[in-house]
Amino acid sequence: MATLCKPAVSVPEYVITMEETLDLARSRHADHPQLALALRLIGNTGVTRRHIVQPIEETLKHPGFEQRNERYEAEAKARVPAVVDEALGYAGLRPADIDMIVYVSCTGFMMPSLTAWLINTMGFPGHTRQIPIAQLGCAAGGAAVNRAHDFCTAYPDANVLIVACEFCSLCYQPTDLGVGSLLSNGLFGDAVAAAVVRGRGGTGIALERNSAYLVPDTEDWIAYSVRATGFHFLLDKRVPGTMEPLAPALRELAGDHGWDAGDLDFYIIHAGGPRILDDLSHFLEVPPESFRFSRSTLTEYGNIASAVVLDAVRRLFDEGGLPEGARGIMAGFGPGITAEMCLGRWTTAEPEHPRELAGARRIVGYAPRHPAPARTGAA
Amino acid sequence: MATLCKPAVSVPEYVITMEETLDLARSRHADHPQLALALRLIGNTGVTRRHIVQPIEETLKHPGFEQRNERYEAEAKARVPAVVDEALGYAGLRPADIDMIVYVSCTGFMMPSLTAWLINTMGFPGHTRQIPIAQLGCAAGGAAVNRAHDFCTAYPDANVLIVACEFCSLCYQPTDLGVGSLLSNGLFGDAVAAAVVRGRGGTGIALERNSAYLVPDTEDWIAYSVRATGFHFLLDKRVPGTMEPLAPALRELAGDHGWDAGDLDFYIIHAGGPRILDDLSHFLEVPPESFRFSRSTLTEYGNIASAVVLDAVRRLFDEGGLPEGARGIMAGFGPGITAEMCLGRWTTAEPEHPRELAGARRIVGYAPRHPAPARTGAA
Repeated sequence: MATLCKPAVSVPEYVITMEETLDLARSRHADHPQLALALRLIGNTGVTRRHIVQPIEETLKHPGFEQRNERYEAEAKARVPAVVDEALGYAGLRPADIDMIVYVSCTGFMMPSLTAWLINTMGFPGHTRQIPIAQLGCAAGGAAVNRAHDFCTAYPDANVLIVACEFCSLCYQPTDLGVGSLLSNGLFGDAVAAAVVRGRGGTGIALERNSAYLVPDTEDWIAYSVRATGFHFLLDKRVPGTMEPLAPALRELAGDHGWDAGDLDFYIIHAGGPRILDDLSHFLEVPPESFRFSRSTLTEYGNIASAVVLDAVRRLFDEGGLPEGARGIMAGFGPGITAEMCLGRWTTAEPEHPRELAGARRIVGYAPRHPAPARTGAA
Repeated sequence: MATLCKPAVSVPEYVITMEETLDLARSRHADHPQLALALRLIGNTGVTRRHIVQPIEETLKHPGFEQRNERYEAEAKARVPAVVDEALGYAGLRPADIDMIVYVSCTGFMMPSLTAWLINTMGFPGHTRQIPIAQLGCAAGGAAVNRAHDFCTAYPDANVLIVACEFCSLCYQPTDLGVGSLLSNGLFGDAVAAAVVRGRGGTGIALERNSAYLVPDTEDWIAYSVRATGFHFLLDKRVPGTMEPLAPALRELAGDHGWDAGDLDFYIIHAGGPRILDDLSHFLEVPPESFRFSRSTLTEYGNIASAVVLDAVRRLFDEGGLPEGARGIMAGFGPGITAEMCLGRWTTAEPEHPRELAGARRIVGYAPRHPAPARTGAA
């Protein structure tokens, strides 16, 4: 049984408060015809503060796409390893125990992805599989957990490292003046998160079933316009209303598992914005308090993109975890509009003894010799 | 057993020959101090012609990153669906039978990736998983096959669509004048390829084991510099020498499976360039003729990045396939420097009856109820 262990999360040292955000909007966009609306929308986010990788004065400059991307790479290399180390520690594993790295990040672009650098500098095996994903945006946190779950389902002795590295502030575009952009400027924050999905052993969320869902014909509701100045984030005003079509997908996933999505013990939901959380608790008929982990992430860090779900899980751990067998759902939402969802149970199983690898040759291939488990849930 | 079915491949209608490429290099770089070297390197590629999405006059212009990327999107939308249709036909499946799409492409960037558009326009189920990969370059073709294999190992009833969409000509950078760039300008071509990995049934390569390998400390040997003008391809002159460290990884993978990498029935190797093929046949001690599928791809299409391995498999099919049980290896190479490798046997098993889905509710989640197969190959 694949288990999502405790995530490590780090936010940068520079902080911008809601009041500072509002002041900036007022001073920079004094003549904007929809300033009042933008201020109200920002105020409604409930984001009290955000963390960013540079002082705000630097953040507001646009030195060019190349420099932005170089900054992304430098910040990632400076900040990711400590978070990965901490996540490995929570899982009771060493780099040598990892079989796959899923690295998700939509706020900078490198080829090769940071996975190659991580393998080279942190001592991961040369045979580590790399899944770098840049194009699933905020949904990528859920996708990373689900692909790790799939991999451990295929290879039950495998361990997968997930890294979500999001420096949203490096995508700030001073010339984007639509209300959606002004809102985004007050909503997104920076963070690095990492977690291990252990194929065997580990304390955390034992993953039981996953699914995805694309809301039809919403491709351009959340999108990047790719330009000489970098990635320009486009946010359609219809996005906050997407929980109505997405709630049934969560209900269906739970129903196929014999669970009721409205009656679970924990909820880890992408905190895209306040209405996402308000609406989903409404449509699933669960009390708002059930989404407290996601709400805290939003309030204290802002929308940290693919790192939200990992940070919300971290908060669940920090609250003390749950009774053995407690059932829950996790869902990341992002461009597509795509939901990446999974179901799991809290497990406090003692970690098994880590694979003894000292002096042993690493595994380089997998070949299941027995019939694999039948897929269930077919109609 | 996951089976890679016959790939469909399409190359664009505009053609540039080796002689035209050499003439262009001579006329555009008449004063280049290393022109003679560049001409010799281009001549040595053995690429007799390449296909590109626009006439060469348009290709040589750089209208800006935004326009390039818009062109990428328009060409992808115009060219991918027919190739996908053909690949589905070869696999005997309909869009409704697909559970996951792995879309690999390093020559344009979209968020959301083309996966969302494909699902919306071609009738794939809303629950189709999306793995868009932009950061594995030429290795992504092998990675796509391997992730599809993993998914079908986890969920044996699943079917995965792989799409490799590479318009390398849209990454032409007129201001890049290093010898590596001049060589690249004469090496890469455009193509779209697609194939289905069927969890059950299908004729093709039954996938048995996969692995990856990162050559240590070679991150910057193949890389993109990301700039306002788009992706600038950096090719280190040491790259052609990488088969010496990679051949042992192929030998190890085969050895772990009880096979000899030097004595297989078919070889599907990334045709990065002629020396890649020459060296690997040397280090594996197999006759050059064994790499004829890859060689033909290189000669007729150039290096078509992640689409190479799928095109080489297509050529194996077109040659008439192989006797039941014939054993082979497939390997994609790309930035990292990463190899994505797998082993398989030719199978001519009759396709099973496609899942009957008319009127049936789609599967939305997977939950293996039985212990999954043990990983083998551990030391």
